[in-house]
Amino acid sequence: MEKRPLILVTNDDGISSPGIKALVEVVEKFGDVVVLAPDKPQSGMGHAITINSTLRINKEKVHNVTEQYSCSGTPVDCVKIAINKILPRKPDLIVSGINHGSNMSINVIYSGTMSAAVEGALEEVPSIGFSLCDYSIDADFSAAKAIVEKICKTVLVHKMAYGICLNVNIPKGKFDEIKGIKICRQAKANWIEELDERFDPSGKPYYWLTGKFVNFEEGCTDTDVWALDNNYVSVVPVQFDMTAHHTIDALKSWNL
Amino acid sequence: MEKRPLILVTNDDGISSPGIKALVEVVEKFGDVVVLAPDKPQSGMGHAITINSTLRINKEKVHNVTEQYSCSGTPVDCVKIAINKILPRKPDLIVSGINHGSNMSINVIYSGTMSAAVEGALEEVPSIGFSLCDYSIDADFSAAKAIVEKICKTVLVHKMAYGICLNVNIPKGKFDEIKGIKICRQAKANWIEELDERFDPSGKPYYWLTGKFVNFEEGCTDTDVWALDNNYVSVVPVQFDMTAHHTIDALKSWNL
Repeated sequence: MEKRPLILVTNDDGISSPGIKALVEVVEKFGDVVVLAPDKPQSGMGHAITINSTLRINKEKVHNVTEQYSCSGTPVDCVKIAINKILPRKPDLIVSGINHGSNMSINVIYSGTMSAAVEGALEEVPSIGFSLCDYSIDADFSAAKAIVEKICKTVLVHKMAYGICLNVNIPKGKFDEIKGIKICRQAKANWIEELDERFDPSGKPYYWLTGKFVNFEEGCTDTDVWALDNNYVSVVPVQFDMTAHHTIDALKSWNL
Repeated sequence: MEKRPLILVTNDDGISSPGIKALVEVVEKFGDVVVLAPDKPQSGMGHAITINSTLRINKEKVHNVTEQYSCSGTPVDCVKIAINKILPRKPDLIVSGINHGSNMSINVIYSGTMSAAVEGALEEVPSIGFSLCDYSIDADFSAAKAIVEKICKTVLVHKMAYGICLNVNIPKGKFDEIKGIKICRQAKANWIEELDERFDPSGKPYYWLTGKFVNFEEGCTDTDVWALDNNYVSVVPVQFDMTAHHTIDALKSWNL
């Protein structure tokens, strides 16, 4: 590549998280980097956008790049604002993460990290969401950084088909413990929810959403959950056509 | 049906909106209805869930049913809480809406209305999101109510395949102006965004997200946008596997 690619970096953990710091350190080696990320944690925001309130954008000095901004909105807001207001042109790549914690399987629809990547795909920009399967603030991102570099460089060469982004999850551990990179599909799985009921000082109940992740496809070796369980990096191509095409004919027979 | 079905009603415009009132009035005719809806507008919340703060649930007296609650969270939170905390068993049907404004095409991923339905599908409950293509607080829901009744009763008979919900959009206007009900796919479309920049009293900029909807498939008669433009009700079956299955082989050839 003669010209350095223009790369937008965002996330859902907020502009000051160690994960986005690791991501910026990788991509600034080969790209012109603009950071525009939420000013506070936005985990679990899914594809939320801010339409009932206003948005603020502030210049920041968190990272070792010239152009960096925090935004009061969601990860999807960040991508929209970057493309429509901040960047001089459509970027060559959008990277989101590195998320503190897995976004495998069904988490793709709850994840702010991945929604930023999906929004990038909607804008026809090659986009990748990266997550490390380690929630700790002290997580070791060294292996993840090597994986991020390899995947970003490959995507910059190959580009991406219209409307596709990548959901990359990286197992916890040292680089030489990782067995390789698997192209996968999203496992069928779900959260078995519980509501943790507590009582405030005046005796009124309040709740924390919590739950247990359950994989309905134990043993299927082509899923992201299997890959991660077996110490592979999982790469799932993600698209945003939610239509259940295979059921259209059956529904037509209902004669609604 | 001998036994009256158990029906959960939610929405994203908030428990007091005219749209949910219309929806409750329809389904209470043939079902045992529980309402659990956001305590404030939650439009554009997508599949957001509340994991960084607590949730409150309050009994309400807005509708003509015994069991009704507002929740401080998102539409998806409402479905999770209803199933895990409030309802005596999994409901036979979840209905979300009637949304004030269309949720056709790509709006399925931004819409709180539809995310509640998708969450229902994840929980293996037949689920439907209803939207009327009229943003007005004074919108006429009479035609929509007839459509809702027909579709709900049909879904209760046919049930729904695992992981499928319906995205139903209803054109504005009188019942006899509606030409019929079309089973469709989600049109390829997007929002061409603009940021409306304004200045607060101290001269600092703030922004409103705004945009223009653009259909990339003008003339395709099998899309929801075409159906609505031509005064049909659109019914799109929606699923939550985001995997771009058709690109997996191409990605494998990258040798990551």
